[in-house]
Amino acid sequence: MNAETTPRKRKNILVVTVHPEARSLTAALAAFAVEHLRAAGHAVRVSDLYAMKWKAALDADDFPGHPADRRLDLLGAHERATLAGLLTPDVVAEQEKVRWSDAVILHFPLWWFSVPAILKGWIDRVFTNGFAHGPAVPPPYTEGALGGRRALASVTIGARESAFSARGVHGRLADVLYPVQHGFFWFTGMAPLDPFAVYGTVDMPGERFEAAKREYRRRLDGLFTDEPVPFRSLTGDYDHDMRLLPGLETPGTSGLDLHVRPRERRGAPRTADQAP
Amino acid sequence: MNAETTPRKRKNILVVTVHPEARSLTAALAAFAVEHLRAAGHAVRVSDLYAMKWKAALDADDFPGHPADRRLDLLGAHERATLAGLLTPDVVAEQEKVRWSDAVILHFPLWWFSVPAILKGWIDRVFTNGFAHGPAVPPPYTEGALGGRRALASVTIGARESAFSARGVHGRLADVLYPVQHGFFWFTGMAPLDPFAVYGTVDMPGERFEAAKREYRRRLDGLFTDEPVPFRSLTGDYDHDMRLLPGLETPGTSGLDLHVRPRERRGAPRTADQAP
Repeated sequence: MNAETTPRKRKNILVVTVHPEARSLTAALAAFAVEHLRAAGHAVRVSDLYAMKWKAALDADDFPGHPADRRLDLLGAHERATLAGLLTPDVVAEQEKVRWSDAVILHFPLWWFSVPAILKGWIDRVFTNGFAHGPAVPPPYTEGALGGRRALASVTIGARESAFSARGVHGRLADVLYPVQHGFFWFTGMAPLDPFAVYGTVDMPGERFEAAKREYRRRLDGLFTDEPVPFRSLTGDYDHDMRLLPGLETPGTSGLDLHVRPRERRGAPRTADQAP
Repeated sequence: MNAETTPRKRKNILVVTVHPEARSLTAALAAFAVEHLRAAGHAVRVSDLYAMKWKAALDADDFPGHPADRRLDLLGAHERATLAGLLTPDVVAEQEKVRWSDAVILHFPLWWFSVPAILKGWIDRVFTNGFAHGPAVPPPYTEGALGGRRALASVTIGARESAFSARGVHGRLADVLYPVQHGFFWFTGMAPLDPFAVYGTVDMPGERFEAAKREYRRRLDGLFTDEPVPFRSLTGDYDHDMRLLPGLETPGTSGLDLHVRPRERRGAPRTADQAP
């Protein structure tokens, strides 16, 4: 590593990549991210869920210490297993990677307007009560259990971009991904950036792929400096019933937009998805 | 089956149930639905995904006819396998149940503001290009490949209801479930009803469970008569770029609300989630 490529602060980045085909666009973008971030001097670890044959379904096998004849209360069982160090080794290894990281990047194809099952299973199984949420850790939607980390969803999408705009039939990508952006990243305290999306991937000529990589490089370079999505904080913006305090809403907004503060500075990445 | 319990039209209903614990609230509500619908004279088939050990991850094993050395293009491979009858037996069996059905009911706990991984895997693997979408079947968001069917998400939720209201920090349940309601049910042509949700399930005393069953019975009785969510139709409401035509938006709405027509008749189920 020479001096020119050494960033002022070397960071730890966990790259998760999710596609059954090693020659997919998703895999190519993940490989590009790993290479670019390492060249910039960062430490990168990779979780390639298909290559790891990641077990997707959260089930009784996740609780080796649980008596078979006792009713499995998942929330309680997760907390007990996490705090007692009784989680399975595959889950422990992923928690250790997340703990080590300063940023988490998820690379996945959008299937049925959501993450593939195997990635949902990574979320369901790794982010346990006691590790990522629950009474044993800081509260959600603010500093959170995993506070201090950046998070980026890097998504490949078969459909065209126009259909994911505000008036597009699929809805805004930011809204479609709300369960990931707000319900997973922000809930656990990670600061989510705007998703990076490549559309129209069913037919992807070389020059479009090169353009996508150029744009992605810019986003990777801003991983620790771009403004995160300014979701509201449970501490200060909501009452004790977890409802938004009166008067905080931005005039003219409704629905999920209520839970985002107005963007503060110019120059933040803004896509057609955020256009009014 | 006696004459008093025989409905004028006997319907076929597929009940999908998703929980690793057979004594869970989710399992109890699914069992109640099966019993109640059968007592009303309907034919019911059940897919209990955990009991079936349903394979969650869509991978190369889903395409037994695909040459191992050829790049796996999932969309194309799914269409070829579907049209040529080369899907795996577990997927074929589920497609046959869906085809047989007049209504599909999904029973699941809300994990990370979405369906559990094993249920996402049922969607990813069963609803193939050629069966549920794609050029070989009718267009999405209107009659669709699976048109003529009703669909109901029956959800158990640990969190309290106030947090899922419009101003609640989690967002409206209808918005959080948009990828299921609009992106899965309506995309494939199924007419989604408002979700049925039981909140605060971490502690569920007997009287609250009895109240939930009474409310659920009412929803099951309206399975074929309640007004579905009036999502807009791709045929007529959108331009050739799949953007909502000018002037169609309900004044004062934004975001995902743009894609829902105003409710037409009184008496349709309306929860706090749909309140303005």
